Amino acid sequence: MIAAVPLSTEAEQAARRVMARCDRLAELSETPGQLTRVYLSAQHIQANRLVGEWMAAAGMTTWQDSVGNICGRYEGLNPQAPALLLGSHLDSVRNAGRYDGPLGVLTAIEVVTHLHEQGIRLPMAVEIIGFADEEGTRFGITLLGSRGLTGTWPQEWLQRTDAQGITVADAMLSLGLNPIDILSSQRNITDFCAYLELHIEQGPCLQAAELPLGVVTAINGARRLNCRFVGHAGHAGTVPMGHRQDGLAAAAEWMVAIETMTTERGNNLVATVGRIESFPGAVNVIPGEVKLTLDVRGPEDGVLEILMGNLLDKASEIATRRGLTFDAEQFYGIKATACDPQLQKRLAQSVEALQGESMLLPSGAGHDAIAIAECWPVGMLFVRCKDGISHHPDESVTVEDVAFATQAYIDTVLGFNQS
Amino acid sequence: MIAAVPLSTEAEQAARRVMARCDRLAELSETPGQLTRVYLSAQHIQANRLVGEWMAAAGMTTWQDSVGNICGRYEGLNPQAPALLLGSHLDSVRNAGRYDGPLGVLTAIEVVTHLHEQGIRLPMAVEIIGFADEEGTRFGITLLGSRGLTGTWPQEWLQRTDAQGITVADAMLSLGLNPIDILSSQRNITDFCAYLELHIEQGPCLQAAELPLGVVTAINGARRLNCRFVGHAGHAGTVPMGHRQDGLAAAAEWMVAIETMTTERGNNLVATVGRIESFPGAVNVIPGEVKLTLDVRGPEDGVLEILMGNLLDKASEIATRRGLTFDAEQFYGIKATACDPQLQKRLAQSVEALQGESMLLPSGAGHDAIAIAECWPVGMLFVRCKDGISHHPDESVTVEDVAFATQAYIDTVLGFNQS
Repeated sequence: MIAAVPLSTEAEQAARRVMARCDRLAELSETPGQLTRVYLSAQHIQANRLVGEWMAAAGMTTWQDSVGNICGRYEGLNPQAPALLLGSHLDSVRNAGRYDGPLGVLTAIEVVTHLHEQGIRLPMAVEIIGFADEEGTRFGITLLGSRGLTGTWPQEWLQRTDAQGITVADAMLSLGLNPIDILSSQRNITDFCAYLELHIEQGPCLQAAELPLGVVTAINGARRLNCRFVGHAGHAGTVPMGHRQDGLAAAAEWMVAIETMTTERGNNLVATVGRIESFPGAVNVIPGEVKLTLDVRGPEDGVLEILMGNLLDKASEIATRRGLTFDAEQFYGIKATACDPQLQKRLAQSVEALQGESMLLPSGAGHDAIAIAECWPVGMLFVRCKDGISHHPDESVTVEDVAFATQAYIDTVLGFNQS
Repeated sequence: MIAAVPLSTEAEQAARRVMARCDRLAELSETPGQLTRVYLSAQHIQANRLVGEWMAAAGMTTWQDSVGNICGRYEGLNPQAPALLLGSHLDSVRNAGRYDGPLGVLTAIEVVTHLHEQGIRLPMAVEIIGFADEEGTRFGITLLGSRGLTGTWPQEWLQRTDAQGITVADAMLSLGLNPIDILSSQRNITDFCAYLELHIEQGPCLQAAELPLGVVTAINGARRLNCRFVGHAGHAGTVPMGHRQDGLAAAAEWMVAIETMTTERGNNLVATVGRIESFPGAVNVIPGEVKLTLDVRGPEDGVLEILMGNLLDKASEIATRRGLTFDAEQFYGIKATACDPQLQKRLAQSVEALQGESMLLPSGAGHDAIAIAECWPVGMLFVRCKDGISHHPDESVTVEDVAFATQAYIDTVLGFNQS
């Protein structure tokens, strides 16, 4: 991949600084030799302090808000104008990679560093937030940082406990945060004009297209279901093939249909059976019952619902034809989040100018942009991920791709000078 | 189903006695309210005593052999002629039905009762054995009773332990059996001319054919394998359908092929995937690895081997096409046991005379006849089983079918008068 435009030395230096800072943040971990940085841990506060220092060095005023987000503001020409918000998260899954989250915060700081060093003031302020908890690793609830901004923390979250039985409220108190103040992290709807988030793709699409950067069209909606086929257990030796009501044979036929139908449907839809169990589960017994999960995702809720309906109809048809029963229960669902068309266009123009063409793709994973989109227009820039591996120590980006990303990010933000 | 020949009052009375005795034996259980009678238990010896009394009442001399089989002999005209051996087993699985095993012993006693009451002596003696352990419930080793007769107990069996850590040897000693004497249960090859075993079908074929009785052609050979597809785990949201190396999608395609290929092949072949597990086994992760078992059975070893080879080739083809690997390891195998053609013919003639037509079918389950066939010709008569349910308290036969079975058994044995 040759860039249409040669990158500046400044972008290359910025990318090296981003990589070094990702390494530096990766040292802040509760598990030696691995990266695990969870909400309201000592490492969370250490990361906030370090990122705050880097923000300050970029000419920003900084503060930690009441839910533990680290925030910085680079003032604009009109302090009353809704600010441009950049950000991503600083927490991690257990035994994580080092780019999922921090890459978006640290490239944002490079954007402001550029403005600061060039003495550029945009019409509006630029704010950066390192969100405190996107992954939900510690308390099993996600997007805590970004929901602090939108003011949509359910009251019961304060009483949620971690594996040690410590509540969110107690964990806050132990770090000097006051749970009574959580609503003070909420921002006014007029505070921001737009939110941009840069993130590692966590999938293989950009690598397959041989492109460093892509623009996100939507964050996939998702549905998760517990499904079950019930037939008749039987002796694996005495029941002829034609006499069986085999729960696993039915499930197998359905799994093949799930793969075929979802692939044929296109539209960036994906469907996964991640867990399966047969009962009684003995080598010499025909399974009378099979439990399996279904995870279906797509960037458009309507299309997703139609696929899900078709898949469930297919399961019922298979069950009926084989003399079994089928049932399914949805236990999790999240609507798709559309990215703002204007922000997509701004990002795509910067990307195209740099790499010759842009690529539009949905995000299969969730991001802080889901929560932010409830209040403000959101746009997302994806950076190529080695072999699609994420949530794993092998997660990897190249310094060259980060240089492209930083340049595209700078160019996009500079575009707000004319708006 | 109307019998071609009306049954005698004697056969009907015999069948009622068999049913009552099955109920009586079912009371000898280590678990109240369930039937569980295992090798070398107090109930084993109680059952032997009771069956021995019934044998004696039928004019037989009785003894318990050195591995705990209960044996009876009804002398023939020529005590030196190889005897006709009838039998089945008296042990059970846990929470068993009451006909699997005892039905064959008790109908055999009715055969001798008939000879005794009619004052008939065959040219050869008739012996009956209630085998001590066919199921292997207690020690996990099977056909212990019939292998006592063939003298093929491996030495190490004496040291095998049950769930409480009690060895076979210690359990023998506690019941007055001497483990040093086990070989004395071995019989000379010239002791028997043939072995006949009547057994509940444990499958649905006779019920589907609306016939009380069927003649077994062979006891299926079986192969059991642990199989594994290895692909690549991935994020269920970020990896497009076309980029996946999904172990469970591959396994599903294979399971559909297993069912289709085995059904198309006919020849009484059956194949079962009883157990399956996906790894990591999370709802939102594409399974990188799937482990599953394969159980393949059929009455002819050659045909079975060809099917198994074709199924494994298919798995490799699926794995290669999808960019995965496949491996399989056989952990259990037993050859098919052919029933003696002459004995099949004798049984089929008796069955045909009674129910108008005979039905030939393989046995999917294992029986004492497997061990006995190593030394003597074997023949098996199957009795219709309600809904194919066995190894379960709901196992059921009708008294009418048992009357047919007893009559066919008597007629077959009387046939040896002319041989």
